[in-house]
Amino acid sequence: MIFRQLFERESSTYTYLLADVDSKHALLIDPVAGQEAQYLQLLQDFGLQLRYAIDTHVHADHVTALGKLRELTGCESLMGEQSEVACVSRSFADGDHLRLGDIVLQALYTPGHTDDSYSFYCQSANGQRLFSGDTLLIRGSGRTDFQNGDAAQQYQSLQKLLALPEDTLVYPGHDYKGWQVSSIGEEKRFNPRLQVQSQAEYELLMAGLNLPNPAQMDIAVPANRQCGRL
Amino acid sequence: MIFRQLFERESSTYTYLLADVDSKHALLIDPVAGQEAQYLQLLQDFGLQLRYAIDTHVHADHVTALGKLRELTGCESLMGEQSEVACVSRSFADGDHLRLGDIVLQALYTPGHTDDSYSFYCQSANGQRLFSGDTLLIRGSGRTDFQNGDAAQQYQSLQKLLALPEDTLVYPGHDYKGWQVSSIGEEKRFNPRLQVQSQAEYELLMAGLNLPNPAQMDIAVPANRQCGRL
Repeated sequence: MIFRQLFERESSTYTYLLADVDSKHALLIDPVAGQEAQYLQLLQDFGLQLRYAIDTHVHADHVTALGKLRELTGCESLMGEQSEVACVSRSFADGDHLRLGDIVLQALYTPGHTDDSYSFYCQSANGQRLFSGDTLLIRGSGRTDFQNGDAAQQYQSLQKLLALPEDTLVYPGHDYKGWQVSSIGEEKRFNPRLQVQSQAEYELLMAGLNLPNPAQMDIAVPANRQCGRL
Repeated sequence: MIFRQLFERESSTYTYLLADVDSKHALLIDPVAGQEAQYLQLLQDFGLQLRYAIDTHVHADHVTALGKLRELTGCESLMGEQSEVACVSRSFADGDHLRLGDIVLQALYTPGHTDDSYSFYCQSANGQRLFSGDTLLIRGSGRTDFQNGDAAQQYQSLQKLLALPEDTLVYPGHDYKGWQVSSIGEEKRFNPRLQVQSQAEYELLMAGLNLPNPAQMDIAVPANRQCGRL
């Protein structure tokens, strides 16, 4: 399996490249507009064909590269059925599987940050990885105060993710302090937001964050409902 | 083996945490001043004791955390003998080995970016890693136009690194485009600076870069000769 985590500095977004070594088929999770040339370079270096470009949810902090990558490579663009984004090639639902040779990616519906948030659980010969989008972050969790965000739903979604094996590597959609990877066991023990004793306590914690809106939100959300067209 | 790559955004520096699971002894390569609290948090989460803080060379683009980490943790601070930094606990030379339980780190003197540049070759049960400092970057190499930099020396240093096994993972001291890891085989094939046919051609290429000086250079170099004291 070929695996790369890529960092987009302006929005602190992590994009993931996964590829099957035998078939040379690849997918990208949460690609960012403006980075397409880099993705194409990496695909070319490895001799890969991009099959899927996937967004974990409609992002508010950056514009997606989904539409552009489909134009450039002929890949399928995918989002969750709750996103209701008409321009995608197809939608996925909770429990759906996406296969890339021996790599299996299972879609887990994990609403809370937004009402269309998904995580992806990936099993391969190298062990299990969770691409946790903006649901579970390293030592944090995605904000729940816009785009039909819901702290109660997120609490339930987090319980779902914490039930995965403890040695599952956690690869989040963002990090703002330069950390790249964690594990389910590590987050269980050290994520301050997961030390609450009840859903009510979690809701209270999230209600008290008082974060400013993302700088690009008014541009990004409408653009991302059009697969990245500005 | 516990392994983490951490990114410091302002100078685009990668810092590496390596630790032996059994002895719980840890080391940091190229730690950045101002990030000490994060390093201590991570060490605490994993129950680790910091034994060594190592700089690959006297940095010109950020201030080192070597001195501060020694104060805070009692670790040894280490630099190459060519650095001539009097405040370090001890110096290492080409071929020296540093052990952390089963982890062995071999110092490779790789001058060219500066005259005190080292890389570290690490063999463990998880395979080989090269911490290539500012000598070999992903699809690039460190500039050679100050601090006794020398393109001819760097060409020779790069040949030394390229002789390592092709599946050696390459972890550089910086990346400016969000890429995190490569391999010796990948860099041999795709690094544009390694496609030259001779040392003379490499020298010509490096002489033509015309890069601006690092913003922090006038502060960082004198501070780093004092282990980070400003």
